[in-house]
Amino acid sequence: MRIHIQNPPPDDLFVITPQQWADCAARRPDVGQGHDISYADDDAGFAKGIADAEILIGPPGVLKGRSLAGAKALKIVFVMAAGMDKLMPFDWLPPGVALLNNRGAHGPKMREFALMALAMLNNRMPAYATQQRRAEWTGHFTTILRGKTCTVVGVGDLGGNAGAAARSQGMKTIGVRARPAPHPEFDRMVAISDIDSVLPESEFLVLACPLLPETRNLLSRERMQKLPRGAKIVNVGRGPLLDQDALCDLLESGHLDGAVIDVTTPEPLPPDHRAWNTPNLVITPHVSADSPATYNPDSLDILLENLRARRDGKAMPNQVDLAKGY
Amino acid sequence: MRIHIQNPPPDDLFVITPQQWADCAARRPDVGQGHDISYADDDAGFAKGIADAEILIGPPGVLKGRSLAGAKALKIVFVMAAGMDKLMPFDWLPPGVALLNNRGAHGPKMREFALMALAMLNNRMPAYATQQRRAEWTGHFTTILRGKTCTVVGVGDLGGNAGAAARSQGMKTIGVRARPAPHPEFDRMVAISDIDSVLPESEFLVLACPLLPETRNLLSRERMQKLPRGAKIVNVGRGPLLDQDALCDLLESGHLDGAVIDVTTPEPLPPDHRAWNTPNLVITPHVSADSPATYNPDSLDILLENLRARRDGKAMPNQVDLAKGY
Repeated sequence: MRIHIQNPPPDDLFVITPQQWADCAARRPDVGQGHDISYADDDAGFAKGIADAEILIGPPGVLKGRSLAGAKALKIVFVMAAGMDKLMPFDWLPPGVALLNNRGAHGPKMREFALMALAMLNNRMPAYATQQRRAEWTGHFTTILRGKTCTVVGVGDLGGNAGAAARSQGMKTIGVRARPAPHPEFDRMVAISDIDSVLPESEFLVLACPLLPETRNLLSRERMQKLPRGAKIVNVGRGPLLDQDALCDLLESGHLDGAVIDVTTPEPLPPDHRAWNTPNLVITPHVSADSPATYNPDSLDILLENLRARRDGKAMPNQVDLAKGY
Repeated sequence: MRIHIQNPPPDDLFVITPQQWADCAARRPDVGQGHDISYADDDAGFAKGIADAEILIGPPGVLKGRSLAGAKALKIVFVMAAGMDKLMPFDWLPPGVALLNNRGAHGPKMREFALMALAMLNNRMPAYATQQRRAEWTGHFTTILRGKTCTVVGVGDLGGNAGAAARSQGMKTIGVRARPAPHPEFDRMVAISDIDSVLPESEFLVLACPLLPETRNLLSRERMQKLPRGAKIVNVGRGPLLDQDALCDLLESGHLDGAVIDVTTPEPLPPDHRAWNTPNLVITPHVSADSPATYNPDSLDILLENLRARRDGKAMPNQVDLAKGY
């Protein structure tokens, strides 16, 4: 097929290279070979590449705002991201073109980050970071994670791996998702409409769901207040999933014991934002799920698995349901 | 037997209670029942208790500097700590009295702390903490721990659990100890006299050995310089195991990528010490291995296991070799 890869700028860690494609194609020669690939990282290259492309590949930040009106042969857009929020609404997508995400490319890195965040919160590292800023030596002795309860909101690739991380330390796990079918990493599954029922027992709460109109402000001030005193929060989804001001307020008041947030509102977080100095709040700059060694290879493998499914007349597992947004 | 328990002050988290003793005795009634126990946390109580005690129990800070000259019946001193450095030299110990440590009481907590520290260093959390102090949003994308090399110096209860933590993430593990017999958590064991041979491949180095005359300044400036550029250090042993000024210098120069130190020189670290503000250095106040829920029960269980060995005419597994210091 004619495939156009629109890359981020050349100095970006996540540029897809011809070598990466060749390696990926060699792993699945039945669907990887025989394609005609173009690469670009500028507007002219995009216009030329998209003119006859059947598949377009690129990250959300690079695809956002581009017109696909002239892409008469286009069949598939493969977005190098799990969350589609930057590309919503989908009015830019020509009718009949399939939209794929790279769900599955973030797992091992997310599992390690979630493990780290849970252990950091349990060992009160956010408090020690706050104390270190004022050169204060005060110990807080804590018990281990085993037996404590971790609720994960969103049980896709990210949330499933967060659940696996929690379970690897012997935590009790509760999964929250739209359709709560049983999941191997969770002791219990709850519908998102019933989230309020599990908040009082959620000592640790991990947000790992997509940002959609119905999940915006999901963790509102009221819901944070329903968490037990001393609860700990991890956000690896999107900043607007929670009320950031309420998070800061409740960390300051001590109702919440600590938080590790890898996503903020907005991003980057402005230098004068109160969150930088909020006690017991650890901020990382949206790095929780992307390993430069594996992100592109794993993403391209996922694309080829989808092309294999398409060739075999099956549904493509990564196709985004445009009505749902994931 | 007559047992005297000399406790820390009443507000301390680690006071041994009669209920803890009773629970412990019930778990091993063959060696736990029938003892005559006294408790004290002051000088008068110590003098009274020690007069006829056969076993003395207490933490190093509470036992340090006390005379045992009048303890004519004393057979065993059980120290509530793994490291004996605070109590060395052992000239205060009457001849013929066995000195026991509580090696084994720190394992699960240490495993979680080591896992956290390794993941934090791998995910560049020390750099993010440094950036957060200046409200800076800059991402550093890293690969996962799998396949990277972790060297652990000291392979007792602490170091063995640190090795288990590293291995649980698929790291290659090298153990360094005085007598390098094979160990289940380490791919390779090296004698401490050969430590220089493994430094160049040690991307992560964990110090978990006792502080002895021969381990003081073990990780000297010269040895830190032999680590690969970008190496990461964890110290859960004792502060003087490493050259703290060299650590700060080499973090500032960028030769070292980050460090998590739970022990410092001195402790507490004075408010004006440069380490508090050294970039990419995370400091915790000697909390890595003590869980308040399990520390006393596990320690008392260890004591009873030793009493059982003694009753059966076996060597007590926790007896400290006074010549070695551990």
